[in-house]
Amino acid sequence: MENNTACELCDRVGGTLLWQDSACRVVLVGDTDYPGYCRVILNRHVKEMTDLSVAEREHFMSAVYAVEAALREVLHPDKVNLASLGNMTPHLHWHVIPRFKQDRHFPEPIWGKAQREGKPALAPEWQARLAESARSRLGPG
Amino acid sequence: MENNTACELCDRVGGTLLWQDSACRVVLVGDTDYPGYCRVILNRHVKEMTDLSVAEREHFMSAVYAVEAALREVLHPDKVNLASLGNMTPHLHWHVIPRFKQDRHFPEPIWGKAQREGKPALAPEWQARLAESARSRLGPG
Repeated sequence: MENNTACELCDRVGGTLLWQDSACRVVLVGDTDYPGYCRVILNRHVKEMTDLSVAEREHFMSAVYAVEAALREVLHPDKVNLASLGNMTPHLHWHVIPRFKQDRHFPEPIWGKAQREGKPALAPEWQARLAESARSRLGPG
Repeated sequence: MENNTACELCDRVGGTLLWQDSACRVVLVGDTDYPGYCRVILNRHVKEMTDLSVAEREHFMSAVYAVEAALREVLHPDKVNLASLGNMTPHLHWHVIPRFKQDRHFPEPIWGKAQREGKPALAPEWQARLAESARSRLGPG
């Protein structure tokens, strides 16, 4: 596996691991304002989507869509935000963020100006249910 | 085509049109701080990627990757940012943003706090070259 010792996503899992296969992993970020916020992280140190082959892109994105579908099933967000930025950490990773009208930044991106206090109110057992739904969609890993 | 009369992306092209086919279109946003900033907009009014079929997702994303590749070829950005947010306009559209270390917000997302004045310095004829590169990658449309 290509590895960059100065890269935090090469060094660390990057959150609570929900699933992984040989190409990528899904983690729960653990953001207090955004409890359902997941990342899908490529295992290899690659910078841009167009540095991947078409088959690699499709596999990686199928994990992103599986996480989006699991978040929608379990949390019923008003919108899902998807983003691959990587300006600080140029190692491919997708932010998959369930957004709610009463969250801290809505309708702004979570990187924008806070709009209110924002109180996440999630159903009991959501984390176990999310992990189960994601794993059932992602396959054995 | 599904159309929502209250939606600005159903009503308007949304920028300078570079390319379109029956499923989606590519526009140059015209952002002063980010001259190469493009959007890839689905023609139908659909909210989330997981509302599309797998084939529709792949076609839509292939347009996003073609734009990323054209931006890399013509502008040589330090990083490309991809994002599907849609909190204000829940009609699928991808932001494809070439980022430079000296741009207004780097390394923050463009929705974050400005870091400096930011002076885009782009090669002459970049817009015509970008349109040509994008079209050659996207096909006849």
